[in-house]
Order: sequence, then C-alpha cells, then structure tokens
Amino acid sequence: MQIADRGTVLDAEAQATYRRNGFYLAAGLLPEKVMTELSAAVAGLLDQDGPRRITERDGVTVRSVYGPHQTDPVVSRVCRRPELAGAAMEILGAEVYIHQSKVNVKAAFVGDQWEWHQDYIYWLNDDGIRTPDLVNVAVFLDEVNEFNGPLTFVPGSHNEGVLAATDKQGLPVGYEDAPHWVSTLTADEKYRVRHEVIARLAAENGMVSPKGPAGSVLFFHPNILHASSPNISPFGRTTLITVYNGVSNPATKAGNPRPEFLAARDTTPVRLTSSS
Amino acid sequence: MQIADRGTVLDAEAQATYRRNGFYLAAGLLPEKVMTELSAAVAGLLDQDGPRRITERDGVTVRSVYGPHQTDPVVSRVCRRPELAGAAMEILGAEVYIHQSKVNVKAAFVGDQWEWHQDYIYWLNDDGIRTPDLVNVAVFLDEVNEFNGPLTFVPGSHNEGVLAATDKQGLPVGYEDAPHWVSTLTADEKYRVRHEVIARLAAENGMVSPKGPAGSVLFFHPNILHASSPNISPFGRTTLITVYNGVSNPATKAGNPRPEFLAARDTTPVRLTSSS
Repeated sequence: MQIADRGTVLDAEAQATYRRNGFYLAAGLLPEKVMTELSAAVAGLLDQDGPRRITERDGVTVRSVYGPHQTDPVVSRVCRRPELAGAAMEILGAEVYIHQSKVNVKAAFVGDQWEWHQDYIYWLNDDGIRTPDLVNVAVFLDEVNEFNGPLTFVPGSHNEGVLAATDKQGLPVGYEDAPHWVSTLTADEKYRVRHEVIARLAAENGMVSPKGPAGSVLFFHPNILHASSPNISPFGRTTLITVYNGVSNPATKAGNPRPEFLAARDTTPVRLTSSS
Repeated sequence: MQIADRGTVLDAEAQATYRRNGFYLAAGLLPEKVMTELSAAVAGLLDQDGPRRITERDGVTVRSVYGPHQTDPVVSRVCRRPELAGAAMEILGAEVYIHQSKVNVKAAFVGDQWEWHQDYIYWLNDDGIRTPDLVNVAVFLDEVNEFNGPLTFVPGSHNEGVLAATDKQGLPVGYEDAPHWVSTLTADEKYRVRHEVIARLAAENGMVSPKGPAGSVLFFHPNILHASSPNISPFGRTTLITVYNGVSNPATKAGNPRPEFLAARDTTPVRLTSSS
C-alpha cells in the first residue's frame, strides 16, 4: 500500500493548523518549472468546448473546466505529485483517489463571485459520499492578492459540520436529488448558507483570505464555509483544484449519478509521481 | 476670508502624499462621540424615501442617499468640521463649498460593486465644473477591511487627467449631455474606463485599498481611478462622502442642470464649526 509518510510534505504543525483552521497555505510549494508547464497545459484546456467547460454569465468568458486530470497528461501528472496527492494522503491518513478536479479561471475584470457555501453538501447529497474525509487542494496558477477575488474562509467553520442550507428562493433544502447538475456549477450556488449563520460564524471566528504567489498550494476542508468576490482587477486568478477522497469513502449514489468528470466512480488509488 | 491654515489638519508630508498618490488616509481622525452621533443620524436618513435615495438592484436595499448635508443638521455640522472642510481648504488652498454629499451604504451581503471610474468626468460633463480642483472626503462609519468591498485606487492615476471613457455599449463617449441623471447613480457607471487603460495603469502603479477603523477619513482626488468590489461579507461598510469644491470653480452647465442634491448651485463658502 502506498501512503505518503506523515510529514513528508506537511509537518505536524502544518497538519495541526489544517485541522484547527480548516485550511493551510503552503506558499510557493511547486517549482517554477512545473508551474510553467501546468500553465501552458491549462491555457490549452480553456479552448476546448464541451460540457466540461462552464462560462460566466456573459456566455463567453470561461469560468471553469471540470475533470482536467482525466483529459490532460500534464494536469494528470501534476495531480499525482507528492506535494498534492502525497499531502492529501498525509491529511486523510489513507490512500486517495481523485473525486473531482477543476480549473477555476476567475478572469480579470469578468470573473464572477462564488457565493458562501460548503463543498461537502454537494458531495453528500449529489454523490452519496458518506463522510467529509476529502480534501481540496488548490494550486495557484497566478498570484492571489486582495484585488483579484481571493477565496475567503471563515476559519474553524469546518467544525460545524454541514450547515443548514437554503435554495435560491431562500427555502430550506433537505437531501433531495439534484435535478440539474449543471445548475450547481454557476455563480448561483444550489446550497446557500443562511446569512445569519455566516454572520454568527464570522463574528466568532473572523475571516481570512489566503494570498500568495503562483505555485502556492492551498489545502482546505470540504466543510469550511467559503466564498469569493468577483475579480474587478486586471489580474487574472486561475486555480487548479483537485479534490482527493479516501478510497474507502466512495460515491454511493444509485441512479442518475453526476457525470464522471464531476464525481468519479473510478476509485483507483493515485500512484504518486516522483517530485523531480 | 476664512481659509484653514495649511497644516492644521494635514501636515506638509500628508499633503505631499495626497498630491503624489491622489489619496490620503487619516486613520481615526474623528472622535468617537462625533461618530456615534453621525451614525445615528445616518441610520435615520436611510429610512426616508424620495429621489435622493437610490437602491441596489434588488430595489429594496439602500445603496446611496444624496445631499444629506442639506437635510440633516448633524451631517451638516459634521461636514463643516475642520477635520473635513478645513482639510479640504488645506488641500485646495481656497475657500470651499459643498458640491455634493452622499451616504454610500454598501450593505452586508448585498452592497454591489462600483465599477472602475473617475469622478471628475461627471462633474465636468454633467455639471460644467471647469477644473478638477475638488476633493472627496470620505468618513468611514464602519471599519473598512479587505472583506467588505473597500474602495480600491490606482495610486497616481489622478495625474493622467480625464481618461478616455466608454459608454455601456463600449463606445467612446464625448462630452454630451447626461440624458438621465439617475443612470449615473447605479452600479452601472455611465463613464467607464477602458479595461486596457486600467490594466496599464495598474501594471505601472499597482493598486491600493485603504483600510481603517470607523472615524477614519479618506481624502481622494476627483481624477483618481477607483472601483470597489461587492460586499460579500457580513460586515456593513457605510461611508459619508462630501465633495468640496473651490468657490471660484462653480458648476456652469446652462440648461437642465442636475438636481441641487447632486450638484450644488449654491456656492456659499463653508463656515467651519469648532472641532469640539
């Protein structure tokens, strides 16, 4: 069995910070050479039309491309690097497979907001993943600064579990079926967290927007409450996010599953590449 | 003639910073007692319906209230304080009158963005003010932080003069009449600055979002390029902005002027209150 040694990428202190705050930023973790190759690969992916590609409200600017690790050899290799998949194994203490991957573009001037939400409620309700033992691993392809719509977290909010959510009409939602998976990929979140809950958690815990240069890697918990502003700046903010899941925690939803590029059924464990 | 001594509020270094960057933040300039009284007065203003009050796209949340110094005695008195009007005299080296005032609410979760723009082009084109010798004085009624949609400046951009602007269809605009003044008060700016111009200026000069506690006062030039993100946070960000103009630089637009609450014709010089 191939599980990264605890502490090879994230030492005990980093892992404790992750568990306490629900996120951990490793600034400049990936080498420049890797970032150059990855950025070129991602630029090519944005040009490919199809259901994996989601646009902003303007219908033109690319917002996200899903499942790039399934279609692009460079992305596939980067997602198996020790700094990403190895660190995910350290955090989860298990062998992992890739449940989902996506490139979020957040284009200069145009990239829209992501409303306040948690990730896990989608994976629970829409995919039937039974425990929140997944980890988001976000690679910064551009510098993330205060101007280009950084991810904003309420630290510690992952300890609240799945928060009460409302639909677009503000009505409580239960765990019903996802009628249209595409509706979960736009700027309108399907599962919104109530404003009073966000206000309470932010009053208790504050807010943090992790920032850093390209090559930084941000690990965050599937239950952390997060959002991001539109990008009003001239600085693009592209991110590659890979969601690693423990191999013993697969999607179990029977009937009408989301497409493989949104919710993998293939739980083959990631084989780490060398870090060279 | 009543002109504040140079340096009573803003010393030579502060004034030099203002001239170089196009803005200057004086953190915690107004006493807590004044802020308490001002906040109570502003809360009352938001309840008053009428053409001075502009809502967000939702048609419900207040975005701005114009001309509060004309209707509210507390705001009127605050606008004549040495820290505001006196500092404006120092910056402009002249007696001043109030060309415009407004409360910008930027409500928690709802307050929308302000697109990239310069202020002076409105006052030039719509009001016929012949030189950009005005100054915006913004009083923070709430803490301004990185999460609640702070004003964002391109420092030094005021030195570019009036930048080429485009209308909502992206077409160049000249100095034609303003057809509907109300259209200049919404989240869609009438005079937009081209994206390539913003990108060039930001690459050359960077960007800055001044932050500070309630009671801070932010002075900024009418030609500085600025914008602000929506407020996605649970933290409100209300600001009182007063635009002081030199008395020898009045609005000259003949025929169909904007309402007095948007563009004063009354150029009676401000008489400073005591600062107690």
